[in-house]
Parts: sequence; structure tokens; C-alpha cells
Amino acid sequence: MDRLHLSQHISRQFNNEIEDVRRQVLAMGGLVEEQIAAAMHVLIERDAGAGAQIREREQQVNAAELAIDEQCAFILARRQPAASDLRLVLAVMKMLGDLERIGDEAKRIARIGERLLDDEGGVDVTASLGDLGRCSRDMLRGALDAFARLDEHLALDVMKRDRKLDALYKELNATLVARMQQKPEQIPVELDRLWCARSFERIGDRCKNLCEFVLYLLRGKDVRHSGLAKAGESPA
Amino acid sequence: MDRLHLSQHISRQFNNEIEDVRRQVLAMGGLVEEQIAAAMHVLIERDAGAGAQIREREQQVNAAELAIDEQCAFILARRQPAASDLRLVLAVMKMLGDLERIGDEAKRIARIGERLLDDEGGVDVTASLGDLGRCSRDMLRGALDAFARLDEHLALDVMKRDRKLDALYKELNATLVARMQQKPEQIPVELDRLWCARSFERIGDRCKNLCEFVLYLLRGKDVRHSGLAKAGESPA
Repeated sequence: MDRLHLSQHISRQFNNEIEDVRRQVLAMGGLVEEQIAAAMHVLIERDAGAGAQIREREQQVNAAELAIDEQCAFILARRQPAASDLRLVLAVMKMLGDLERIGDEAKRIARIGERLLDDEGGVDVTASLGDLGRCSRDMLRGALDAFARLDEHLALDVMKRDRKLDALYKELNATLVARMQQKPEQIPVELDRLWCARSFERIGDRCKNLCEFVLYLLRGKDVRHSGLAKAGESPA
Repeated sequence: MDRLHLSQHISRQFNNEIEDVRRQVLAMGGLVEEQIAAAMHVLIERDAGAGAQIREREQQVNAAELAIDEQCAFILARRQPAASDLRLVLAVMKMLGDLERIGDEAKRIARIGERLLDDEGGVDVTASLGDLGRCSRDMLRGALDAFARLDEHLALDVMKRDRKLDALYKELNATLVARMQQKPEQIPVELDRLWCARSFERIGDRCKNLCEFVLYLLRGKDVRHSGLAKAGESPA
């Protein structure tokens, strides 16, 4: 192979590697989405079987995190990417942690859901938990779509939705405290629901982090700690 | 400058940059330690003034996170580090997120502590919260020391201490639930204490993450998701 062809060959290979990382992140994100869905099945539909699914998928998510992380380190060491390629690799390495921890929250929700399987009361609060769950799951889907399409508007839209999630969470929080005060013997059950609500709220926070990395990819500028108002400004 | 001297010069500059990153991480860690201490001042000693300190320091922590992150990206782009230098830079970029979020937990604790300033009851549970706080603060100090000295035994020791923290947390959790059941009108106050306990417990989890990165630096092998038992094995 002459030098020109060799360099084209390496650059094609490099592009493939970068594309492969993107694909793998989206696949890992898909698994985490399924974990949230399964957690909601346990908690809302009271489907005990979904818990086992989550634990199985957790192994896959952990394995994906380590594999993608290693692939990114390999690209950094061998390909010495610059500019937007470097940003992509660095953003991915940070997004992995958020994705994996969203999966952890889903696992926590499912474990609590298993404890609540036999609890009869609380149709209303279960419905509210369902709203929270759907909102957080939609945020994850939106964040992954924003990453797949590198879509700034979608990323900002997901970040805004976090406010709705926070409002839902606060409302449910107040309801659960009132229920605890009315029936103190039910406190452990209501606390379990509160932990689930909190986990959904945390998932929303992490989806916001994911979107911040998408903005970083697009703008080449870190928007963390600048608040949504600043993040929403037109790119500098 | 001839080529040999130029290359020595670049390599010395590179070493300085790497050393500088290490120093900056330790300085940022010191700020976060102070945030935990200030949060405990508000919550345990009921010192209202410490809250303002935390918010001021939060700005410094956020600025440090972004500055170190940028410095790491610069080193990756310009110096193309390999092997242990590459590992250090990558580990630091991930540790930043954990450190910053430990600071966030401290801020949460302080905010709740401000709400609890006028609450008279709860000497015992406040003492238990103090135990949790000290344990989590010591874990952070240990994690930072392990990073500064690249000390494997210390890192493993900190990871083991997380079990003690979890046990303290569970015990306090049970006490707080019992208190809620005895005095339902006090539920919001006890819930506030529960959130603080939870935050300390989360700080411990993040210190464990920091130690995992220290092990990764030392062993060149990712020990995340392998559990403490495996992490504690002699290096492969």
C-alpha cells in the first residue's frame, strides 16, 4: 500500500471506530431504557417477573460500560484524535457513568417495587409514580435521540422537561408525607414510594447531564454549572 | 535549542503539567472536604453562618472542575500521553465528577441543616448524624490521601469503611422511622434528617468510586463492577 492509501485506510478505520463507539453508546442506552421500563413494570403493573430481567440486563450494562470505556482509551492512545473527535470520545467517557447510574436507579426502584407487590392501597400515588416514571423514561429517550442526531433543540427540550419532573416529584412528596401522617403504621410503605419517586427524579437529573454533554459536543464549550438559562442561549 | 534539549524541555514541561493536574485535584478535594465540614457545622453545631461559606466554596469547586477538565483535554490533545500518564488523565477526568457531586451533597445537607436550626429535639439522632458525617469526611480524606500517595492499601481500607457507613446509615434509618411513627407531626423534620443521612451515605459511595480510580491508576485495570472482594485481590 502506498502512503496515501495507507493514510486513507487508517482514517477510514478511525472513522469506523468513532462510529462504532457512538453505536455502542446508543445500544447501552437502549438497555438502560429497558431497565427503566422493567422497573416500572414491577412498581406500577406489579409484575414480579420483570425484576429478574433487570438484574440480567445490569450485567450487560456494566459490561458495555467497561468495553466502551476501554475502546475510548484505545482510541485516545492509538489515534490521538483532535477537535470534535476528541470531544466525542471525552463526552462519551463521561456519559457512560451517567447511563450506568440511571440503570442503578432502575434497579433500586425494581427492588423496592418487589417489596410493595402485596401492598393493596395507594392507587392514586401509584398512578403518580407512573407519571414520574414515564417522564424520566421519556427524558432518557430524548437524551439518547439528541445524542444520536446531535440535535441541540432536542437536548434543550429534554433539559427543560426536568422542571416538570421536579414539580411532579415535589407534589408526590407532599402527598406521601400527608399519607404518612394520616396512617403512621404505613410509614415504611410510603417511604418506599418516596425512595422510588426520588430515584425517578435522579434519573431526570442524569438525563440533563447527558444533554449537557450533547451541547458540549455541538458547541465545543462546557455548559455545566452555567444553568439552563445560559445553556439555552444561542451558541457563543 | 538542539533536538535533544528540545525534547527534554518538552518532556519536563509535560511532567510539570501532569504534576500540576494532580496538585489541582488535591486542592479541589480539599475544598470539598471543607464543604463537608461546613455542612456538619450547620447540621450538628447549628452554626447558621457556615451555609454561606458552602455556597461561596461551591463556585470555587465548580470553577476548579471545569479548569482541571480543560487542562486534561489540553494534555490529551497536545501531549498525547500514553500508558500511566494517559490513565492518570482519564482517571482524573472521572474523579472530578465524583468530587463535585460530593460537594453537591454537602450543599444539600447544609440547606436542610438550615431548616432544622430551630428544632430542639433529637439530640441522639443528631449525634448519630455526626457519626455518619465524620465517617464520610474521613473516607474523603482517605481517598484523597490514597490518590496523593498512590497507596493501594489505603484505597482498599477506605472502600472497606463504606460498609461501616452503610451500617450506621441503616441503624439511623430505623431509628428515624420509629420516631416518625411515635410522633407523626414530626415526620417532616425526621424526613429532613433522613435526607441528610442519605447524603452522607452517598458521599461514602462516591469516595469508594474515587478509590476505584486510584486502584485503576495503580493496576492499569478497571476494578469497577468487580466488587470489593475482587478489588481486594492481589493485583493480576
